[in-house]
Amino acid sequence: MPTLSLKGKNMPASPIRKLVPYAEEAKRKGKKVYHLNIGQPDIETPQVVLDAMHNFDQRVIEYSNSEGILSYRQGLAKYYTNIGIDVKTEDILITTGGSEALLFAFQTCLNPGEEIIIPEPFYANYNGFAVSSGVKVVPVEANIKNGFALPPIEDFEKLINEKTKGILICNPGNPTGYLYSKEELEKLRDLVKKHDLYFFADEVYREFCYDGAEAHSVMSLEGIDDNIVLIDSVSKRYSMCGARIGALISRNKELIAMALKFAQARLSPPTFGQIASEAALKTPASYFKEVIDEYVQRRDILVDGLNSIPGVFCPKPKGAFYCMASLPVKDSEDFCKWILSDFDYNGETVMMAPAGGFYANKALGKNEVRMAYVLNKEALKKSIIILKEALKVYPGRI
Amino acid sequence: MPTLSLKGKNMPASPIRKLVPYAEEAKRKGKKVYHLNIGQPDIETPQVVLDAMHNFDQRVIEYSNSEGILSYRQGLAKYYTNIGIDVKTEDILITTGGSEALLFAFQTCLNPGEEIIIPEPFYANYNGFAVSSGVKVVPVEANIKNGFALPPIEDFEKLINEKTKGILICNPGNPTGYLYSKEELEKLRDLVKKHDLYFFADEVYREFCYDGAEAHSVMSLEGIDDNIVLIDSVSKRYSMCGARIGALISRNKELIAMALKFAQARLSPPTFGQIASEAALKTPASYFKEVIDEYVQRRDILVDGLNSIPGVFCPKPKGAFYCMASLPVKDSEDFCKWILSDFDYNGETVMMAPAGGFYANKALGKNEVRMAYVLNKEALKKSIIILKEALKVYPGRI
Repeated sequence: MPTLSLKGKNMPASPIRKLVPYAEEAKRKGKKVYHLNIGQPDIETPQVVLDAMHNFDQRVIEYSNSEGILSYRQGLAKYYTNIGIDVKTEDILITTGGSEALLFAFQTCLNPGEEIIIPEPFYANYNGFAVSSGVKVVPVEANIKNGFALPPIEDFEKLINEKTKGILICNPGNPTGYLYSKEELEKLRDLVKKHDLYFFADEVYREFCYDGAEAHSVMSLEGIDDNIVLIDSVSKRYSMCGARIGALISRNKELIAMALKFAQARLSPPTFGQIASEAALKTPASYFKEVIDEYVQRRDILVDGLNSIPGVFCPKPKGAFYCMASLPVKDSEDFCKWILSDFDYNGETVMMAPAGGFYANKALGKNEVRMAYVLNKEALKKSIIILKEALKVYPGRI
Repeated sequence: MPTLSLKGKNMPASPIRKLVPYAEEAKRKGKKVYHLNIGQPDIETPQVVLDAMHNFDQRVIEYSNSEGILSYRQGLAKYYTNIGIDVKTEDILITTGGSEALLFAFQTCLNPGEEIIIPEPFYANYNGFAVSSGVKVVPVEANIKNGFALPPIEDFEKLINEKTKGILICNPGNPTGYLYSKEELEKLRDLVKKHDLYFFADEVYREFCYDGAEAHSVMSLEGIDDNIVLIDSVSKRYSMCGARIGALISRNKELIAMALKFAQARLSPPTFGQIASEAALKTPASYFKEVIDEYVQRRDILVDGLNSIPGVFCPKPKGAFYCMASLPVKDSEDFCKWILSDFDYNGETVMMAPAGGFYANKALGKNEVRMAYVLNKEALKKSIIILKEALKVYPGRI
């Protein structure tokens, strides 16, 4: 057979899927597995979205415009305006999930071999889009001790060279749940301006902020209009991950025009998903209130529970629905395998994502795991008990 | 602002969209424009598909598996088996349209700088996916005089070098409508085997074959299982272009495993579209009979009409719903602009796709246009009259 590509060989395996065979084996043995490894919320999609599908009244399921359905783009611009983010219809390109927005952003802004600086730990699929685009990810270390706050700007400065084209943040963060402050964003703004870099911000968890905190958007930073690229998605906001609708947003008109060429090559984003997403714009505020209340309770159960286990440390995140915890183990991947393969508590166990896959520096995150609190409260309580009991008897404990 | 990417600069504009500003201007002036330029069928989507959306009964619109919903992949394998193509569930990766299948195929099989040979004229978006992947398209000339039959194998042989990784065909063809014979496919099989190349086949128009002709699939060719990559899509088959559901299919297990890594990075294909596509598998045979009958009538009106115009030549295609015609003009792009800007017949005009964009060799196709017969018969009859009258008075006529 002909050889396959180097890109394909270099594509990293997903850290949240790495242990799937272990989970399947556990299930075959009759164990119940609580999935703390994935970010698929169990929260119901708003009724207005489901109604839009039930009332779909077109006779031909046509391509939409490559840039997305105009009325949806207009509605989305209004959504941003309503939450104080100045975005115009023409700044918006609708994409097939935030995933495609990231891919278009990388392909539009960076040449193969150029570099993008990302605070780590970071969303592992950034690696995939970087490999696809031939772009090099340069990590800058954030630390669990201060809850993964923005690393010192000097640490970024040290990494900037003639190949550096941009900085990418996820805010609120997956996998950390960290919410950048306005001051932190302004520091990045100054850095981006100084070196004329792109500032990519993945803000798909915007609505999920807790304890009265608010997400600040990069679109509100002044003086770097041509540098800012916003990545967004309806997946988490309305619990409609399967719709595969995201957006690439920038005030840089040349950038949007160029990204549109990539968009035209793939014809259009999904029509059903766009109709569903346009309907989602009518989601009542009460929906979000309920969802946020639920996530705060879940977060508290999970994070407080984790911190009650001897040797475990988990900073309490202010956003998204993930947390990173350090465990009293040498190798969290080994522990995550072991708890699936060799442990159960009353026939139940948990699946977590070993944090190594969220770090580019392979020396980091060795004793950390990522957990998503997208399960109900009862399941989370049980997960804490299982973890606590497991750590009592795990042979690799330190 | 930071510079944009070279890839973006090299992304070709779509030949079917190139003249959109001229069409918009014509409409502003009150002209009615018949769109022969696009491949968006007006045929209704099967009722079973619309019903599936109306009856959507999930409460959470979840991600599907990255490889696609299992029951849909199983149903699709059955669809192939039923039409005599041996495809197993595990050979199938569901993609976001045929577009993503092409992108995954290029990225999985070719390194940047490697070459793929494509008979021209070819579907212009192949260029887009090639640019995205850094792959070089090497055209081999097919000719309007013999209806765009397979070029002589010697012509392919001449182009094969150490960088050649594969051959790509579209069968039945867009933009030519040409349907490759079994013998032609076997010649390509022998060539592919001799040089151990990938054989990519875009067969999304499979159902659209006329005059008793049948499409032969590359999957039926023997002895090159590891070389064959089939690109498929529900877009045209069930007139559901907006669903954005396609498939990458191969018996080469390593290839599918590697493509799955790209698929995992983008999480999943659209859930709604997959549910709709699974429902589409129940489309009754009567639907296709009616659609094919309609297309045959449209083809005959358009192609016979074109050939009745002095100086126009249009081979009669046996498949898809496009035709390529040569016109008695020096420059078909200029003619296509002129007919929108400076001509009307009783307030009406036509929009066609200048064929230049379907050729990689810029010297070819200068006097050709592509037309899609996805409009109703009345519109096609009127289009022929408009074109005939226009050619009588066009200043650039030769």
